[in-house]
Amino acid sequence: MTPSSEVSSNLISSERVEGTKVFATSGDKLGSIDDLMIDKISGQVRFAVLEFGGVLGIGTDRYPVPWSMLDYDPAREGYVVPLDKDTIRNAPRYGKDELRDYDPEYSRDINSYYGVGPL
Amino acid sequence: MTPSSEVSSNLISSERVEGTKVFATSGDKLGSIDDLMIDKISGQVRFAVLEFGGVLGIGTDRYPVPWSMLDYDPAREGYVVPLDKDTIRNAPRYGKDELRDYDPEYSRDINSYYGVGPL
Repeated sequence: MTPSSEVSSNLISSERVEGTKVFATSGDKLGSIDDLMIDKISGQVRFAVLEFGGVLGIGTDRYPVPWSMLDYDPAREGYVVPLDKDTIRNAPRYGKDELRDYDPEYSRDINSYYGVGPL
Repeated sequence: MTPSSEVSSNLISSERVEGTKVFATSGDKLGSIDDLMIDKISGQVRFAVLEFGGVLGIGTDRYPVPWSMLDYDPAREGYVVPLDKDTIRNAPRYGKDELRDYDPEYSRDINSYYGVGPL
């Protein structure tokens, strides 16, 4: 991944994150970002909460994915994640209207599922 | 600043950031967070966009402040910033309905005004 030459576009408002597109490594559109989970102290995004509604025929659940798995692609103004349908099928998820508590155990569960360490 | 013992509350949804309270070092309430500007690639918050509407009698302008100046106070569930009215009076700001382009020059201007380096 190469940072955009349009440095001015490197910052995004938290209000405009919702709807940013997410692509598979193959280039297919997977879905979009619904929300970001941010560490209140460090200001580091820990998880992107993705929705695949409609695209993969897997409903409207929300899928938290470790931020370190997302690569920004300036050309498409979206993120690329190494996910396929098989990985998503068993991934941690919750209902779109559910207020999920991202306690340490849940955060560990997500990182463990995707085989990445905490940021 | 001590990280919260309630580790489960260390993550906040980007959708719920708006309205988080901001206090002066003296303890007085200054205003609230209106928005966060996030580096799309690293996922690091660079600027908190503050509003002081009503509290200081300085209108509804938006004030971008380098993230490194904010300390999270778990007891008050808000941020403490070392700002006073004199500092705010001449600070970079823009109208609440203005779509401000955070290009590199503007980012430098903000950091320079507050005398902090880039994150």
